[in-house]
Amino acid sequence: MLLDLLILFTSAKIAGGIFTRLRMPAVVGEILAGVIIGPYALGLFEITEFHDLFAELGVVFLLFTVGLETDPKSLLRVGREAVAVGTAGVVLPFLFGYGLMHALGHSVPEALFVGAALTATSVGITARVMTDLKRITTRVARVILGAAVIDDVLGMLVLAVVSGMAVGILSASHIALLTVEAVAFCVLAVVLGRPAVHRVSPHFTRIVGDASKDPLFALAVALCFGFSVIAFKIGLAGIIGAFFAGILFAELKEAPQLRRSMEPIHELLVPIFFVLMGAKVDVHRLFTMEVLPIGLLMTGLAIVGKLAGCGAAALPGGRWHALTIGVGMIPRGEVGLVVAMIGLDSGVVSNDVYGMVVLMCIVTSLVAPPVLRPLLASPAMMEEPPGPVGEGRP
Amino acid sequence: MLLDLLILFTSAKIAGGIFTRLRMPAVVGEILAGVIIGPYALGLFEITEFHDLFAELGVVFLLFTVGLETDPKSLLRVGREAVAVGTAGVVLPFLFGYGLMHALGHSVPEALFVGAALTATSVGITARVMTDLKRITTRVARVILGAAVIDDVLGMLVLAVVSGMAVGILSASHIALLTVEAVAFCVLAVVLGRPAVHRVSPHFTRIVGDASKDPLFALAVALCFGFSVIAFKIGLAGIIGAFFAGILFAELKEAPQLRRSMEPIHELLVPIFFVLMGAKVDVHRLFTMEVLPIGLLMTGLAIVGKLAGCGAAALPGGRWHALTIGVGMIPRGEVGLVVAMIGLDSGVVSNDVYGMVVLMCIVTSLVAPPVLRPLLASPAMMEEPPGPVGEGRP
Repeated sequence: MLLDLLILFTSAKIAGGIFTRLRMPAVVGEILAGVIIGPYALGLFEITEFHDLFAELGVVFLLFTVGLETDPKSLLRVGREAVAVGTAGVVLPFLFGYGLMHALGHSVPEALFVGAALTATSVGITARVMTDLKRITTRVARVILGAAVIDDVLGMLVLAVVSGMAVGILSASHIALLTVEAVAFCVLAVVLGRPAVHRVSPHFTRIVGDASKDPLFALAVALCFGFSVIAFKIGLAGIIGAFFAGILFAELKEAPQLRRSMEPIHELLVPIFFVLMGAKVDVHRLFTMEVLPIGLLMTGLAIVGKLAGCGAAALPGGRWHALTIGVGMIPRGEVGLVVAMIGLDSGVVSNDVYGMVVLMCIVTSLVAPPVLRPLLASPAMMEEPPGPVGEGRP
Repeated sequence: MLLDLLILFTSAKIAGGIFTRLRMPAVVGEILAGVIIGPYALGLFEITEFHDLFAELGVVFLLFTVGLETDPKSLLRVGREAVAVGTAGVVLPFLFGYGLMHALGHSVPEALFVGAALTATSVGITARVMTDLKRITTRVARVILGAAVIDDVLGMLVLAVVSGMAVGILSASHIALLTVEAVAFCVLAVVLGRPAVHRVSPHFTRIVGDASKDPLFALAVALCFGFSVIAFKIGLAGIIGAFFAGILFAELKEAPQLRRSMEPIHELLVPIFFVLMGAKVDVHRLFTMEVLPIGLLMTGLAIVGKLAGCGAAALPGGRWHALTIGVGMIPRGEVGLVVAMIGLDSGVVSNDVYGMVVLMCIVTSLVAPPVLRPLLASPAMMEEPPGPVGEGRP
């Protein structure tokens, strides 16, 4: 067991390090490391039930930290343009993904999972490019970061509904119930959870305080597990709970300290999660004529979906403005992978389709930065009015 | 799975918090919480293979942090008195534990495990009392902290040999081989590992550096897993490797930062480990006439062993001095539990004997502080020459 963890952890760190040096996202290196060392290629380890449990733990903390970087107040602050861009960027890729799978004769639940996997932007990659080029305070950056927050929440709601469908009978009333449940959970988590965290936090801190060097961390972990369990019990994916638990802590004044405490957990568990995601890809199948063309088509639709959806919503700001925002929203990452993994584990998504989604996540992450750099460096950028700092995700 | 983690984590934190408020060690609260909610009492969860894997991960990080607090340079700096106190405090309790089990007709391996479980002092409890009473810079404190370091290393060597015996045939040559292996591993880990860490560290940091916010943490985790695997492969307990990996990082100038990074991992995994240790105690059996009297006798021998062994070694410093040091060395904790757990999991130690060891750890941890406080507050203390600060464990 420890040997497996050693292999997973070390290969993740080395591959991530190499990719970062090549100016490519670390997560792509981690996934590819998993593909290479996994059971379908080198076979350095077998994926057992224990690995799945470890991956589940990793993804719970991953989604918690995604939530922790989504201050609910910033949701209310994002402008109308960001809401339009985020919404259009969810709707169009979802329809494209669903449409593609449906047209190819896949089942409705599988098509829904693919649609959901195509929705959520992984804004970290774009944010890093914008930071490197010192463009993170521009209006374009503000719209992208704001839209990505909208995107995350909408993506989570779509996942909640879709993952619920995977287990039940597919009927209009079931879909309606799941949608109501998901929205109710999201609203209740924030509306009831916020004051509860503010009230419980001092008491919990008092009881646990002496035994724990970091009582807020203990409360955060407890709530992260607790919300995941509740979400799971009402038929949603557990990670939805972890995400909303993270949101609750995002606005506390101690949030930066909590983010620091979460970092080592993140550093330990999340790279292992990405390696395991890569290891589940049957790489021999992926490069067959049955799978690869559809995977590339899916990737193309994922790119066009965001470009067209987000671009159209941003068009009033000018063509260059719309194009830059569209490109900035292209990368998919953790959430897309998580959706595909849940689909795979629940037996709704086939291994072939899972491989296509992983390919889509890798390609979209690699394609965006080289296109984004010249766009952000263009003279048109200088004509943009500056936006305020510190909105959306850091 | 998440529900179990939620139950384990929350009960550990709450029980630990309550015990700390009652001025008792948090770890005792965590163990008792496990006894109460575990399968032998309330039965809030079953112990599955997954729980054991989680406990193993917790104990690896626990022993790594114990090692991380044992600077090898402080081993060389501890005075002759601390070496004598530490050694006598290992030998006598080991003989007492072994003798008791042997006299009662238990198998030789089981008796060896009990002997090993009685050796290692859990100095954190004593250190806390000395800090509270502002006595941490005295000569008594210096000897106790130094002796505890000697104690830890000797205890690890004893465990290495004993755990190796549990699986093999018990012969003089096997014992000799294991002893040589354990000593060789210990010496090689420090002699070869130190320059290796100093050399590899910058390269690893360079490769991983960009992808990781804390490359030293990544290296530490990789080495912690790696050394555990090596120790396991050569027939020693995996945690021996984790302990020596920790020692390697203890003297780096970045050690304080690494300790901070390890804290959240520790806060997440270690309380769960202690709850699980408590949950394995068959509390109904413990309070039968077959088990409880022997458990109390074992506890008595554990107390007398340290008092007599350490006290005799410290007697040249005067009777009050010897008594205070003897009492300060009484508490047993994590290492004793780990030894018992390894014995239980490998089938050498029966559940009854495991319960006795847990009882011994709890009682010795509770007994020492109230006796130690008046001793440290006595006027005799004032006549002691002060010792330098910062030796042994903080």
